[in-house]
Amino acid sequence: MPNTFGHLFRITTFGESHGPAVGVVVDGCPARLKLSAADIQPDLDRRRPGQSHLVTSRQEADCVSILSGVFEGKTLGSPIALMVRNDDSRSEAYEEIRTKFRPSHADFTYQAKYGWRDWRGGGRASARESVGRVAAGSIARKWLREKYRIEALAYVKRVQHIEAEVDPQRVTLAQVEASPMRCPVVAAAKRMERLVQAVKTEGDSVGGVIECVLRGVPPGWGEPVFDKLTADFGKALLSIPAAKGFEVGSGFGGTYLRGSEQNDLFEMSGGRLRTRTNRSGGIQGGISNGEDILLRVAFKPTATIMRKQRTVDIHGKSAVLEPKGRHDPCVLPRAVPIVEAMALLVLMDHALRQRAVSGWMSSARR
Amino acid sequence: MPNTFGHLFRITTFGESHGPAVGVVVDGCPARLKLSAADIQPDLDRRRPGQSHLVTSRQEADCVSILSGVFEGKTLGSPIALMVRNDDSRSEAYEEIRTKFRPSHADFTYQAKYGWRDWRGGGRASARESVGRVAAGSIARKWLREKYRIEALAYVKRVQHIEAEVDPQRVTLAQVEASPMRCPVVAAAKRMERLVQAVKTEGDSVGGVIECVLRGVPPGWGEPVFDKLTADFGKALLSIPAAKGFEVGSGFGGTYLRGSEQNDLFEMSGGRLRTRTNRSGGIQGGISNGEDILLRVAFKPTATIMRKQRTVDIHGKSAVLEPKGRHDPCVLPRAVPIVEAMALLVLMDHALRQRAVSGWMSSARR
Amino acid sequence: MPNTFGHLFRITTFGESHGPAVGVVVDGCPARLKLSAADIQPDLDRRRPGQSHLVTSRQEADCVSILSGVFEGKTLGSPIALMVRNDDSRSEAYEEIRTKFRPSHADFTYQAKYGWRDWRGGGRASARESVGRVAAGSIARKWLREKYRIEALAYVKRVQHIEAEVDPQRVTLAQVEASPMRCPVVAAAKRMERLVQAVKTEGDSVGGVIECVLRGVPPGWGEPVFDKLTADFGKALLSIPAAKGFEVGSGFGGTYLRGSEQNDLFEMSGGRLRTRTNRSGGIQGGISNGEDILLRVAFKPTATIMRKQRTVDIHGKSAVLEPKGRHDPCVLPRAVPIVEAMALLVLMDHALRQRAVSGWMSSARR
Amino acid sequence: MPNTFGHLFRITTFGESHGPAVGVVVDGCPARLKLSAADIQPDLDRRRPGQSHLVTSRQEADCVSILSGVFEGKTLGSPIALMVRNDDSRSEAYEEIRTKFRPSHADFTYQAKYGWRDWRGGGRASARESVGRVAAGSIARKWLREKYRIEALAYVKRVQHIEAEVDPQRVTLAQVEASPMRCPVVAAAKRMERLVQAVKTEGDSVGGVIECVLRGVPPGWGEPVFDKLTADFGKALLSIPAAKGFEVGSGFGGTYLRGSEQNDLFEMSGGRLRTRTNRSGGIQGGISNGEDILLRVAFKPTATIMRKQRTVDIHGKSAVLEPKGRHDPCVLPRAVPIVEAMALLVLMDHALRQRAVSGWMSSARR
Repeated sequence: MPNTFGHLFRITTFGESHGPAVGVVVDGCPARLKLSAADIQPDLDRRRPGQSHLVTSRQEADCVSILSGVFEGKTLGSPIALMVRNDDSRSEAYEEIRTKFRPSHADFTYQAKYGWRDWRGGGRASARESVGRVAAGSIARKWLREKYRIEALAYVKRVQHIEAEVDPQRVTLAQVEASPMRCPVVAAAKRMERLVQAVKTEGDSVGGVIECVLRGVPPGWGEPVFDKLTADFGKALLSIPAAKGFEVGSGFGGTYLRGSEQNDLFEMSGGRLRTRTNRSGGIQGGISNGEDILLRVAFKPTATIMRKQRTVDIHGKSAVLEPKGRHDPCVLPRAVPIVEAMALLVLMDHALRQRAVSGWMSSARR
Repeated sequence: MPNTFGHLFRITTFGESHGPAVGVVVDGCPARLKLSAADIQPDLDRRRPGQSHLVTSRQEADCVSILSGVFEGKTLGSPIALMVRNDDSRSEAYEEIRTKFRPSHADFTYQAKYGWRDWRGGGRASARESVGRVAAGSIARKWLREKYRIEALAYVKRVQHIEAEVDPQRVTLAQVEASPMRCPVVAAAKRMERLVQAVKTEGDSVGGVIECVLRGVPPGWGEPVFDKLTADFGKALLSIPAAKGFEVGSGFGGTYLRGSEQNDLFEMSGGRLRTRTNRSGGIQGGISNGEDILLRVAFKPTATIMRKQRTVDIHGKSAVLEPKGRHDPCVLPRAVPIVEAMALLVLMDHALRQRAVSGWMSSARR
Repeated sequence: MPNTFGHLFRITTFGESHGPAVGVVVDGCPARLKLSAADIQPDLDRRRPGQSHLVTSRQEADCVSILSGVFEGKTLGSPIALMVRNDDSRSEAYEEIRTKFRPSHADFTYQAKYGWRDWRGGGRASARESVGRVAAGSIARKWLREKYRIEALAYVKRVQHIEAEVDPQRVTLAQVEASPMRCPVVAAAKRMERLVQAVKTEGDSVGGVIECVLRGVPPGWGEPVFDKLTADFGKALLSIPAAKGFEVGSGFGGTYLRGSEQNDLFEMSGGRLRTRTNRSGGIQGGISNGEDILLRVAFKPTATIMRKQRTVDIHGKSAVLEPKGRHDPCVLPRAVPIVEAMALLVLMDHALRQRAVSGWMSSARR
Repeated sequence: MPNTFGHLFRITTFGESHGPAVGVVVDGCPARLKLSAADIQPDLDRRRPGQSHLVTSRQEADCVSILSGVFEGKTLGSPIALMVRNDDSRSEAYEEIRTKFRPSHADFTYQAKYGWRDWRGGGRASARESVGRVAAGSIARKWLREKYRIEALAYVKRVQHIEAEVDPQRVTLAQVEASPMRCPVVAAAKRMERLVQAVKTEGDSVGGVIECVLRGVPPGWGEPVFDKLTADFGKALLSIPAAKGFEVGSGFGGTYLRGSEQNDLFEMSGGRLRTRTNRSGGIQGGISNGEDILLRVAFKPTATIMRKQRTVDIHGKSAVLEPKGRHDPCVLPRAVPIVEAMALLVLMDHALRQRAVSGWMSSARR
């Protein structure tokens, strides 16, 4: 389902970067959740361009309208349609890419797939599509918090070679939001900022790694076999533009350990079964074990750079792409709320799936 | 759909490790593909335990039976049910784990989810479930080869710290199958073998990385937004037991590059549009660009080790797990055909999806 | 998927009767179909209230806006979001039903399901939801006409006891649209009109049967087993508000025949295989056989009547419902375009599914 | 999903009439339901051919094997694979239809769809496919009975012109099973038997109507819009071979009533909200209202008749089909357990869906 995500909590996003609007239809939200635009707007504001000098200067208010599914301040159980109008659409800045394929963008592959494309600002391939994801994620966030006290928190863990030492168990939203980089470690954040500024000046770009911690997930969520949490978080986070890698817990690093080092031993603690270490990242056999879930996503450096690049046009002729327009030298700060949103959507879907068949220990914890 | 994978080419696997049988129902295979058990058995033999001294000594012939969907040697278009009987089920070897949760296994999480579990050999969480995946993958392999000359080849790229330098464009199946490690570089394979032997002697285990190359995929396959190839390959490969990480193309490594280094410039070559480099790993904007698709999966070291481990039992009491039974000190060689199978299943599904709406350049190439 | 219909051509509708808007997201439409609001508006106008004295006098222009998926007059292959603002929402007319359950409406069942409901005009249960269906159906109609010259035509076959003798092979849209009843037989249409007027005067309502013919469907569409055309058309048409019955071809009437009378004998005619009769209604074994597809839907009389009715309120107390507001004494004329839309959505979905795996005789015909 | 039915409780059937086996994989059954072959076999025995002189004399024991998903007599929560071997496959009896299309069978449409077909006994289009449905239905029956005391009971309501007056609220399984016709009214059953015998002697066939009552369904099950109970029961029952029509409650008959006659008035009775009449058939706005759910299906007369019929062969030449082999002159008695099974599968799926989001009044009743 190309534009739909989830089974019981399903979102369908729509909209092109420079079309009339972007948005999402959220289906499967339980009835009687208190909800208003004020629950959604803050996350959209975190995703919005123009927040700081580090990100694209495109200026859009991104005000969300609730078109359906909410009545007298509460959800009805019917689909919640959310819409954000596209305001600031300077299409002329994109005239050149009408015919030239931008390297490492989706221009060529969309042309190959559909036979043509909306070339204005990347069209459907624009990160602007994520407005719908973030808006839907806010609903999942509210429900998971109210029903299970679950919290999702993402942050920039590394920009190119600059890595922050973060304790995922203790890090707070305030620490993350303290810097425009959304890196919760002050010193590292400062260094990252300087790097991004330098890279911007050079007309280049950088990537890095976002880490996301999910706290309070009860044991027993997720499905064995294909819909393992590992697989579903992976799909969710790898569907974000520019994502090229994903790992859970010790991830790629764990492949350097031996079994005797990687294994998380069980113990009783505080009256419930815990693991002493958390190299599993809160997921065992695809199912949550009650520990913090720990995810990481690799984002490549932004494909748009302010440098001349050789390419080919839609007629198969060599061409040179001139630097023009606005761009994000580093997408990571704005990707943070998108990572949280996608992780929350997966969790909410599995929460509902687990409620359908409900179990033993997990139900005891509720 | 916990036990079903795919949209137009869908597989549903069934079976526990020590139940009567494991198998798969494959729905959506086009009619009139020549098919017999001889097309499937070779891949199952590659997955089978007991192939070498490096893997578990469980002895099972794993002979596949075709129960439906094939008539006079050709597919009917109806579901193809494939079954493999479980022969060698020494349940008594597992008596201890009836009550004790094995560290970093799915014992505890299944108990939390379902309130009980089939403790014999991991039950549904056993890698034996992958018999159905591999059998289904053989069908996808045959169809993709016949219709599109597409080839999938996976191999062991790294075991713990031992990494092989492999050229994904040139590596052959013969090179991969030349060593019981399924590492195509002879010297590296030998070193890996020695490491696995040493680790086995110590009752420990190791993990590593499998790389998979897909050759011949036309441009235009995959979907934007949620069903990006990146996301669907990620989900598929992260659903394999013990997988903890996934990357495409330059993956995590690409986050250390700048945009000007990461970008793949376009050029015309041999009459078609190509990229000079392939850091995108054959996927741009979630859609194939005609270059080789390059995937990597991180497998943690086997959780079962032949050492005493402290744990907790189902009554919440401390316990010690004694080493017992058979185990794979390194799952990677047997995981190679599973990785290929899952990648092929994703490709075949997207092939059918693309045929439904078909495009412009991609159709020209067919 | 409560609010989503279809597999490859999927629609998700949203909106309550008196909320800000109703609409639909259409996913899976192939790229490069010429499309503008002018292709959609005529069908919406046929569904619109206030067309004649026979239907509700609620006045809404129902102007459709295309929010996404169309660029320079052609579809992009991305989701097409369509929205219609709700203008004329006299909620006060519904104040009484805030607390009283209307007989044979969805008031009580929604309350039972969700714990509360949008009582204004039926909320999500209002026939206003069908705006999205009809708008989506117009897209399917255009694509099926352009690719396959397929035509869908529905009409009022019977109102209470007044039945029209219609030849489904010859009836035309002009004949259907000639009367406000959408019954193509002039004399019958007149009698129906008089009946509806009389019933309206008495504050009562009537139901009847809509017949739908689909012409030009090639043989080989539809799936065996669960997704038979019979089953998918049935689901589609039975999901329309007030539908209580469905039949294909000879339907319930065919149960009075013997096999020797019901069977459609094959013959060659005009170079292709035909059936002499069409009691199968164009579907055999769930799959189209190339003959006209013939469907019928039973609509119960409108539940809203302008008479006092005894009922119960949300506190479980006896109550009397006073006649108030506007209502359709007979929903059939306005249901005609909804029936067509739903039938077209099913066909388009199966067209794409068949293209994915394509066959032999059907492909020969294309 | 051609061979899969359901969302949370999903069945996938497989098998051709004369292949090695038929069966089903049931996914989504909650864990810890007591289950053995003895729970399933009785329903299969009711569906089995050769039960009486009224149905086909094909003799098959139809013994079910549980291949997975059950351990120590209880469900695991993993897929339950059920298989029945095909024993009595006299393919030679079908040699003639290898090349000749049987009128009103699926021979031609399968050929058109797939380019070829398994001609032996109808292959996948055979009613033998329903073995898997009935087996899966037994699991749903057991779970619904244990959790909600829900009961499904179907019976033959009419054969051609012979109709039985049945009180759906009071009819019992014993009454249904008392006659080989599965008609609970003795006198009508006798007349039906005589008709079927006479028709058989003449080499002809008859159809009729099966009615199904579902008792004990709490209010609030089902979904608005597309997944209305009306629509889902319709799809389920119209997917049964030979089904040509479906209705709920007053159905087609209700179209002859006025709104003031059709409407079911609410009242309080026994401490809960009831309707005085049940023309809605237990479903309002697509959602259960707590009254008995009442469904009817029209089955056409069996297409196989023991008479010469003119037809066309696969080469497009005129041909005559000679009467040969075994056949059911009336499928209705054997279709009764299939109707029950499909209705139960729909209910169980909606039960789980409702548990996922759970409501207010319905939860109060549990």
